[in-house]
Amino acid sequence: MTVRGRVTSGNVAEVVAIGNELLIGHTLDTNSHWIARQLNRFGWKLQRATTLRDSLVEISEGLREAVKRGPDLVITVGGLGPTHDDMTVKGVGLAVKRPLVPNREALEAIKRHYRRMDEPTTLTKYRRKMATLPRGSKPLVNPVGTAPGVLTRSRKTVIVSLPGVPQEMKAIFKGSIIPVLERVSSERPQEATIRLAGVIESALAPVLDRTQRNFRGLYFKSHPRGREAGARSLIEVHVYNVEGRSEGAINDAIIYLVRNLAAS
Amino acid sequence: MTVRGRVTSGNVAEVVAIGNELLIGHTLDTNSHWIARQLNRFGWKLQRATTLRDSLVEISEGLREAVKRGPDLVITVGGLGPTHDDMTVKGVGLAVKRPLVPNREALEAIKRHYRRMDEPTTLTKYRRKMATLPRGSKPLVNPVGTAPGVLTRSRKTVIVSLPGVPQEMKAIFKGSIIPVLERVSSERPQEATIRLAGVIESALAPVLDRTQRNFRGLYFKSHPRGREAGARSLIEVHVYNVEGRSEGAINDAIIYLVRNLAAS
Repeated sequence: MTVRGRVTSGNVAEVVAIGNELLIGHTLDTNSHWIARQLNRFGWKLQRATTLRDSLVEISEGLREAVKRGPDLVITVGGLGPTHDDMTVKGVGLAVKRPLVPNREALEAIKRHYRRMDEPTTLTKYRRKMATLPRGSKPLVNPVGTAPGVLTRSRKTVIVSLPGVPQEMKAIFKGSIIPVLERVSSERPQEATIRLAGVIESALAPVLDRTQRNFRGLYFKSHPRGREAGARSLIEVHVYNVEGRSEGAINDAIIYLVRNLAAS
Repeated sequence: MTVRGRVTSGNVAEVVAIGNELLIGHTLDTNSHWIARQLNRFGWKLQRATTLRDSLVEISEGLREAVKRGPDLVITVGGLGPTHDDMTVKGVGLAVKRPLVPNREALEAIKRHYRRMDEPTTLTKYRRKMATLPRGSKPLVNPVGTAPGVLTRSRKTVIVSLPGVPQEMKAIFKGSIIPVLERVSSERPQEATIRLAGVIESALAPVLDRTQRNFRGLYFKSHPRGREAGARSLIEVHVYNVEGRSEGAINDAIIYLVRNLAAS
């Protein structure tokens, strides 16, 4: 079997979610899913997503592996806070072999944050920690929380570290990441979904294969959805326009698929 | 900073979810989350979760890396169906360097399935594909769908491949995996959650650190939860009993934490 209709794109990203709460099943990782949608929306390819424990060894090794696979962008989520188990920034520093140093811009941002909240701006060691970044990294403005995001360059890869609190993650992503995604890529993939009732998957498979062969540049995926009330099996077919083909191509492919299925 | 209170356990697993629909953000991966809960419930440690594309290269490489990290169990989810983009079993074969061969037990199971559904039992190439497994692998009964699960041994690691349709995945997991998890481990971790209102995270951090130091064997994690109606900040603290300490240890730790916070 050959790999046909594989999603391709000029810009490749990876997501690394960090937190024991994800791996013990306490928290459902909606952050990676949200980021995947954003990347797809702006024509980027997410090639892999990884979830790691709050462990310096796991984080630095996982990040080193991700950077080695050569994506343009690695987005880490989680582990930016002040507590003992927030060690993402230290892990990034280890992965890219850069020492952690106090970052003046980040310190100012944290002070501003506490001033806004009418809290004392004393820089305890816990607050100082959030402003201690790998040498050469830049803080990214967090408009709704304390810990700034962190941008670190390593060879051709940009590593962006975002907090795990969803509203903070999204605010930094919208403010600092989307403008970059938009600038880099203006192609947007189109997609379509059709639902087939009363067709079983192994009857659909040869027709889907033929359609795939005739519409290269589109990507087809079938999802069995169980049985509907009348006990007919339901299958969803998704068609993605992955190589910037004209919008008409998706319509043509759906018509071809349904005709061939009816004739089979 | 040292890594304290790290979750440890005798039995280590990894989950590998496979499917482009996950990485383009079309589908939220609730399967990995559900499996994480089950593993935790039976005292297993999930050390990493990975999401891979429907690509033979990505799947075989991702699995080879997972096996190399030496877990007792690797669970793959997705990519077991009959269509061109279902290539998990081929990927497992490549990863463990075993050729794919027709599996008589799996063929019989698939025929039985179609007989039960009152469909013709002709073995098309698409149906045959679901019964073509790495040499030495065993099919796992799928009580609610067509594609059987697959169990493959590689050195000290067992690789279990489950379908991506949640009800099929869960049915095979309950029938074939939980009995193994139960047999292997009877320790179950205990946990507790407390919510703190009106405490800011950087004030909590030193107290949490002290508590962590005094209650080794317990694991503490704080989650800022934004602000409640009265504009006081809310933080949840989770305490996990990760090393089989007595149930009383969690209570003692919470009392210690709250007293120290009040005094700080």
